[in-house]
Amino acid sequence: MTARKKVGFIGLGAMGRGAVGNLIAKGFDVVGCDVRPEALEWLQAQGGVPASSLAEMAGQVSVVVCLVVNSQQTETVLFGDNGLVGKLAAGTVFITCSTMDPGYVRALDRRLAQHSIWLVDAPVTGGAVGAEHGQLTIMGSGKREAFELARPVLETFGTRVHYLGAAGCGAQMKILNQLLCGVHLAAAGEALALARRQGLPLDLTLEILCSGAAGSWMLADRGPRMIAGKFDDITSAVDIFVKDMSLVLDATRESRFPAALAHAAYLAFLGTAARGLGAQDDSAVTTAYEVATKS
Amino acid sequence: MTARKKVGFIGLGAMGRGAVGNLIAKGFDVVGCDVRPEALEWLQAQGGVPASSLAEMAGQVSVVVCLVVNSQQTETVLFGDNGLVGKLAAGTVFITCSTMDPGYVRALDRRLAQHSIWLVDAPVTGGAVGAEHGQLTIMGSGKREAFELARPVLETFGTRVHYLGAAGCGAQMKILNQLLCGVHLAAAGEALALARRQGLPLDLTLEILCSGAAGSWMLADRGPRMIAGKFDDITSAVDIFVKDMSLVLDATRESRFPAALAHAAYLAFLGTAARGLGAQDDSAVTTAYEVATKS
Repeated sequence: MTARKKVGFIGLGAMGRGAVGNLIAKGFDVVGCDVRPEALEWLQAQGGVPASSLAEMAGQVSVVVCLVVNSQQTETVLFGDNGLVGKLAAGTVFITCSTMDPGYVRALDRRLAQHSIWLVDAPVTGGAVGAEHGQLTIMGSGKREAFELARPVLETFGTRVHYLGAAGCGAQMKILNQLLCGVHLAAAGEALALARRQGLPLDLTLEILCSGAAGSWMLADRGPRMIAGKFDDITSAVDIFVKDMSLVLDATRESRFPAALAHAAYLAFLGTAARGLGAQDDSAVTTAYEVATKS
Repeated sequence: MTARKKVGFIGLGAMGRGAVGNLIAKGFDVVGCDVRPEALEWLQAQGGVPASSLAEMAGQVSVVVCLVVNSQQTETVLFGDNGLVGKLAAGTVFITCSTMDPGYVRALDRRLAQHSIWLVDAPVTGGAVGAEHGQLTIMGSGKREAFELARPVLETFGTRVHYLGAAGCGAQMKILNQLLCGVHLAAAGEALALARRQGLPLDLTLEILCSGAAGSWMLADRGPRMIAGKFDDITSAVDIFVKDMSLVLDATRESRFPAALAHAAYLAFLGTAARGLGAQDDSAVTTAYEVATKS
């Protein structure tokens, strides 16, 4: 940590904006990067400092939070043309909050160490709502000393900041988390599409399902969007779950673990993307069932 | 309702005991029936009155709550040798809280009406915990007047008492509810078995999964029992979910609705029962995955 409590932040999507809002509110200066100009305008309006390039950010910070979509984007941020590696000072703590393959994360830890950069693998859960309210659960891993340097940053947007072990342990836990998120989200889509099919009153149905043993975080969060049927107001896209459930399937294959529910959920997301809805809000997964049942 | 606020109650299992405890605490006299002598002893200890037969109960009450396992048991209670039909006074309200096929419930409504008995189809959700705390959600249906007579009884153990329409509407909603319950329960089993397989710390894993977007009522309730691996302390048996998911599969077939997740969950319960664990606690569904992955 620098004395000025300045933090670099890469990726100002729905989750990133929530995290940045809490960083700024809790006394950190944030230097931010995003490929979308409107995201940088948003940052400036919040009192943050938009960086015109990763190089411009690199010279100012010793802690960077990266909350991009996947390992490909993380790779570009670090090792791509104009990437951060070679520009960050020795001893910089690089915190990745993205959902990525544990094997990639373990290799990344070794590759960054060769440049004296410390990786903190710290995926999050709690959704955009949790990020906005600073109430995420954080699955932290990496070298213990690096994690302790990252902790004050993580605690601005996480209420439950766990340390799980060497880099990759966070990614592994996040994949298990996504198994349940994906199954619960697809199950909400399945149940509400069946309710629609049967002509049940949808708002009351959702209220009843949420109130008892059928309840889940996903049902409460995505259920109203499924009922509204308006999928172009995007919090997280269908394609994100195609990616996350692919990581789940990779993990189950590697563990020789026949996770039938995870596979069924994956097919619901893939089927939704196949019909051209990959970039829509992930609550659109409920349409996989609607179309399948139209005669 | 009689002036004495006396209620008949049939079926003193985990759910029934919770409901009866609230009925007694909130000023009702309860005359109870159960095939198990120890259940009647429990009732007496609570201040209720055990009935030695259905006939003995029938003469004392004008409202009966029936919380047995399935439609077969309900049929026996009503139309079996020494059943209630023919003994209950005209105008009696018969409340069924069991999970049953909507078609059976609609036919039962007509059959009971021929004996001047009013059926209130009122399945519940919220688990044994919800029953104990009087916080169940109740999916009520039947003739409106009959439902209003049943309401004071239902409100002793339900905090959300909904009226959904003609008899059968409650059963239909409950089946949708069980679709999600079954999928979430099997998914919890799948995720925790994978965590075990990968050598993750199970208590911490459960804490993390419950705290964010992966959370569900079932994960929080059954997760600790799955981790403990002690399935002979039975709250609700695997066979109950084999039955409930069978009703879900019937409903999806009738609606021509290809509910892939419901089917995958059903197979997990059926597989668990196939290995001789049908009478064990339903958290044993996690063993379906453990066995499948042992080499």
